[in-house]
Amino acid sequence: MPSVEDRISETTLHLLRGGGPRAVTVEAVAAASGVAKTTIYRRHRDRRDMLAAALSGLASPAPLDPATAPPDRLRWLIKHGVEAVDRGVGLGGVAAMLTDDDPEFTSLFRQILVRQRSQLAKAIDVSKADGSMRADVDSASLVDAVVGAYIAEYARTGRVVRGWQERLFKLFWPAVQPG
Amino acid sequence: MPSVEDRISETTLHLLRGGGPRAVTVEAVAAASGVAKTTIYRRHRDRRDMLAAALSGLASPAPLDPATAPPDRLRWLIKHGVEAVDRGVGLGGVAAMLTDDDPEFTSLFRQILVRQRSQLAKAIDVSKADGSMRADVDSASLVDAVVGAYIAEYARTGRVVRGWQERLFKLFWPAVQPG
Repeated sequence: MPSVEDRISETTLHLLRGGGPRAVTVEAVAAASGVAKTTIYRRHRDRRDMLAAALSGLASPAPLDPATAPPDRLRWLIKHGVEAVDRGVGLGGVAAMLTDDDPEFTSLFRQILVRQRSQLAKAIDVSKADGSMRADVDSASLVDAVVGAYIAEYARTGRVVRGWQERLFKLFWPAVQPG
Repeated sequence: MPSVEDRISETTLHLLRGGGPRAVTVEAVAAASGVAKTTIYRRHRDRRDMLAAALSGLASPAPLDPATAPPDRLRWLIKHGVEAVDRGVGLGGVAAMLTDDDPEFTSLFRQILVRQRSQLAKAIDVSKADGSMRADVDSASLVDAVVGAYIAEYARTGRVVRGWQERLFKLFWPAVQPG
């Protein structure tokens, strides 16, 4: 059974990822988590404190295993690129950053997104250095393109269909494959 | 001097692109356009009618000139991919699609995004057929990756820095270059 604080955090992140920071209110978290409002207010001054606390507990992805074969490094990048969004601020957080919907949180969301991406950029840099990827790949642009393809497909269709990761692999492999 | 209807439409689209459909109210359009609320209400039943009318006037991009050299086809794709967002529903519209912020408009926004993208997918298909691009490029995934890279960089940094289009060109050229 998760602790009260875990239930509050998980529900806060779930609401944020789906609907952005506007969807995160003490009322909504109480209703969705079953934790009483008074209990939430004993732990958090307000919704901003509750949201900041939940975000501070997000884990970064584990580093890439250096024994990974070159094609599987790209697959790892695609998988973790999506997770950097989904297990971070979510598409709701991305949406809020696009419109600066909650300026107080925009810079915090950006910090988290950058932190979640940093292992990805590092994996690309390592792969460029050891010859597993083309040396002239722009790491930040590649991560943006991978993460962005996921965001764009979701925006366009309302979902991301099965087989998506392998489709992206086929698209990007010629772009990163060492010559 | 633009007509009253053009001023209403342009202001409506400007507010939508920046802040999403929530930012489009008759009050906000009146304030930003200088057109009186009573004049807007004589032309539009409500904000939804005003927004739908503005969206219906969006132009699709012109088709690709078939004389374009292969590398310049990719540059054309990147330029028009960004315009498909910026001159369509904007990042504000994309954000609303990610969170289904205004369900009544989500499907209309999707229709417009799909229409704005259709010339891009067509240009890729033509280029695959005449050997200007690899025949195995997945057209929809490539457009998503190009448009998405722009969305992701904006979300991450709050802007898209100069030289972005050439950076993306270098990233994607090996992925589309015919073998």
